[in-house]
Amino acid sequence: MMHVVAEETDLLGEARRIAAGVDRLFEDALADRCDGRDRLCQAMRHAGIGGGKRLRPLLTVAAARLFGIDEDRALRAGSAIEAIHVYSLIHDDLPCMDDDDLRRGKPTVHKAYDEATAVLAGDCFHALAFELLADEATHEDPFVRSELVVELAKASGLDGMGGGQAMDLAAEGEFLDLAAITRLQQLKTGALIEYAVEAAVIMGRVAEDGRAPYRGYARNVGLAFQIADDLLDHEGDESAAGKKLHKDADAGKATFVSLLGPERARLQADMLVTQAIEHLHGHGEEAELLRAIARYAVERDR
Amino acid sequence: MMHVVAEETDLLGEARRIAAGVDRLFEDALADRCDGRDRLCQAMRHAGIGGGKRLRPLLTVAAARLFGIDEDRALRAGSAIEAIHVYSLIHDDLPCMDDDDLRRGKPTVHKAYDEATAVLAGDCFHALAFELLADEATHEDPFVRSELVVELAKASGLDGMGGGQAMDLAAEGEFLDLAAITRLQQLKTGALIEYAVEAAVIMGRVAEDGRAPYRGYARNVGLAFQIADDLLDHEGDESAAGKKLHKDADAGKATFVSLLGPERARLQADMLVTQAIEHLHGHGEEAELLRAIARYAVERDR
Repeated sequence: MMHVVAEETDLLGEARRIAAGVDRLFEDALADRCDGRDRLCQAMRHAGIGGGKRLRPLLTVAAARLFGIDEDRALRAGSAIEAIHVYSLIHDDLPCMDDDDLRRGKPTVHKAYDEATAVLAGDCFHALAFELLADEATHEDPFVRSELVVELAKASGLDGMGGGQAMDLAAEGEFLDLAAITRLQQLKTGALIEYAVEAAVIMGRVAEDGRAPYRGYARNVGLAFQIADDLLDHEGDESAAGKKLHKDADAGKATFVSLLGPERARLQADMLVTQAIEHLHGHGEEAELLRAIARYAVERDR
Repeated sequence: MMHVVAEETDLLGEARRIAAGVDRLFEDALADRCDGRDRLCQAMRHAGIGGGKRLRPLLTVAAARLFGIDEDRALRAGSAIEAIHVYSLIHDDLPCMDDDDLRRGKPTVHKAYDEATAVLAGDCFHALAFELLADEATHEDPFVRSELVVELAKASGLDGMGGGQAMDLAAEGEFLDLAAITRLQQLKTGALIEYAVEAAVIMGRVAEDGRAPYRGYARNVGLAFQIADDLLDHEGDESAAGKKLHKDADAGKATFVSLLGPERARLQADMLVTQAIEHLHGHGEEAELLRAIARYAVERDR
């Protein structure tokens, strides 16, 4: 048990350090422009600074350690991915989407400001992601930067997160089986989590035929996090989560938990974490943070 | 007069050819995914294919002629810019923004589909822009592709189009003078029009100290188009425009026309076009399409 506690403490320390780095980058990018854009800048800071697990930048920085990538550069790429995540949360929370009032323990952007500002704040986070990513401060090699951009656009657009959200809208009132739910989640949340690891693989110039283990790790971790989210949604505490829970059940939507039941869902998540860690067997100490993140996926709800 | 007619015919022919090229690229990117994303793909085709002046790709292709850039590559970059323009129109038309029912003579996306689909369709066009732009089919040099991405992100985000829209929201009920309106329009619509020319300048690897004339041209043309839009809004015919007009006057917003009056506004637009063409004095025949576009800016409303 002491071993687990020590690892968890280390993970939390790393996570806090990386979250602070993301906050600093966003603060630099979102300083007030005093010409009528102040409200938009404030809304973006409200949504983007000082909250969230920062799972995606954490994954990028952790994976970057495998390839000896400079941490500041990995943090910059990770912050670009977080900017995409933040934009998607702002738009998801809109009245015409999930209509949520609470996010990360604070009022959502359209509640604290207004809907038009929320649409624009999301759009400007979207642009900020690509501005951060394609800058030479992210990587000295422009080939690498271009690949980072193309793959992020794919992971967030019609064949990634955006397409997954459309599948989710289309699924309302429909019965989805386990294969369909897995596919939906792989696009809706998996694609961006997988990209967070892929970004480090791209920055590390890993050849195509050497990328499979990292993709396997990322896919397993992404799915484990989703199952854990479903378990939290099923069993959890709204004030601890800082957002509305039981939404899927209220909407009659199938989830991993509704299809498998909580016990089998938990077993499935455990198995995914074991597989994720197995993909890292070629690495030693330098993969310890990635292993800790995988374990955290299933431990956080216990 | 014959001379003008001949040039106009040529411009319209070029514009039609380029619009067809944009449509083809969007059709390839937006083929139905038969897995719950069909509605989103249809909504994106509804918004993106078969409409609009395609001014931005036209400017990119026209400017590319100055530097001997392959037209297919310029068209690809121009289509990326058009994807940004299309996303901004979809989001602008939303009930929480301008609340428009009609765009390019068709129902707006949230009217023809629903609001959630409109938010996602805009977001997916946004991602598509960067996917198209950063691909090596756009330019063989990854340095060029990275610069294209960074500058498009700037032109469309907080310090460009998105920021300009926020200034426009903040200006409701406020009096703006000519300097403030010029600044607002320079961000809201000017930045992306200027980028359409800048993209060709970047692809042509024009050194920083040689870029001023093209930026001058683009800035003048962007402002001339905006004044012409204000004149159309003031005097024009809704069925010909294919969208709601007189919105600014109805909302009590200052425009170039309300501040200058229609006659001085028209003189100002003429002067901007003369200046735009003057910036191209170092070029001959190869700049003829750019000159025709500048003249069209003020001729289309007569």
